[in-house]
Amino acid sequence: MSALTHIPSPGRFKVPPLSAAVRVGDLLFVSGTPGYDEDGHIAEGDFGRQFDQAVATLQAILAAGGASMRSIVKVNMLLTRLDDVAEMNRRYAEAFGPGPYPARTTCVVLSLPDPRMLLEIECVAQVDPRA
Amino acid sequence: MSALTHIPSPGRFKVPPLSAAVRVGDLLFVSGTPGYDEDGHIAEGDFGRQFDQAVATLQAILAAGGASMRSIVKVNMLLTRLDDVAEMNRRYAEAFGPGPYPARTTCVVLSLPDPRMLLEIECVAQVDPRA
Amino acid sequence: MSALTHIPSPGRFKVPPLSAAVRVGDLLFVSGTPGYDEDGHIAEGDFGRQFDQAVATLQAILAAGGASMRSIVKVNMLLTRLDDVAEMNRRYAEAFGPGPYPARTTCVVLSLPDPRMLLEIECVAQVDPRA
Repeated sequence: MSALTHIPSPGRFKVPPLSAAVRVGDLLFVSGTPGYDEDGHIAEGDFGRQFDQAVATLQAILAAGGASMRSIVKVNMLLTRLDDVAEMNRRYAEAFGPGPYPARTTCVVLSLPDPRMLLEIECVAQVDPRA
Repeated sequence: MSALTHIPSPGRFKVPPLSAAVRVGDLLFVSGTPGYDEDGHIAEGDFGRQFDQAVATLQAILAAGGASMRSIVKVNMLLTRLDDVAEMNRRYAEAFGPGPYPARTTCVVLSLPDPRMLLEIECVAQVDPRA
Repeated sequence: MSALTHIPSPGRFKVPPLSAAVRVGDLLFVSGTPGYDEDGHIAEGDFGRQFDQAVATLQAILAAGGASMRSIVKVNMLLTRLDDVAEMNRRYAEAFGPGPYPARTTCVVLSLPDPRMLLEIECVAQVDPRA
């Protein structure tokens, strides 16, 4: 059995007990990725900035795990405000496009673990076997 | 690396930037599937009709991806009303049975992206390699 | 196509229409696992006891499926109270450690299917092919 590959979180701040992603075979399972920057700042109340930052972090995690935005299979978008759905779709279409897009589920939860988080993006991606 | 296979949404109406399902290897990851019919109508407030429609859509997506209800590995049931759990289990046992059943997680979220949605069904299925 | 392997629920009480876990290839998809003991009792209002019981159940399910806590790839932690996040992380670090940890997403939902449930733990694990 080939070992699991654990990708550490890219930030310079203390994170919960989790890896940013874990590779098993040619699949990379990515943790729910919030909109903190590398210093642990989060744009409170600003969905757009949190979204863009989460995508930037996600891109770094995917690259570290041998995957990319084009190799994402499935995304789960967790939001905390229904009113952000339209803006999320606009930004998402650009960040994850052009199509065909990954499979995706979106839901609005009561809260994310830090109540300032307005979103988290988690995904499963295919790893390039040459990575 | 074999390419991902993207399954488009079966409806005739505009959908968000997502594929209904994506195949990677012998796994098919299916998007959260709500209870819209092919024309984009949804039975507002009627859990049973939304559930049955979502299952019908799911069956079409699975077939298009080379899988079936019998090859589902894991289901996530997202509801928006706790009171629908009992009816969900009754309808689910029939639609996904007979057992043994897939693994499953059920939760009640604050909202789904369209507030008329009372449920979404997402799953991972095994693809028949002859498909 | 090798058949799916369904792992039944370890408890002695009636459960919803689901398997505790399903194996496909070398992956084991585990259902959302709540804090019931084997007789169907749940420690109402006691997050710590529910967490510890859910982990014990999860360990039994993983063992039955040929996996273990060390082979977990990805965890989804579903809570119903934001105030439980800190205690969850403390108990989690011990139960799932030492690091490197699995990938993980945590969210607070409106309710779990039984409103007494304060948490559910679901995961994907790698199966030992010799299992």
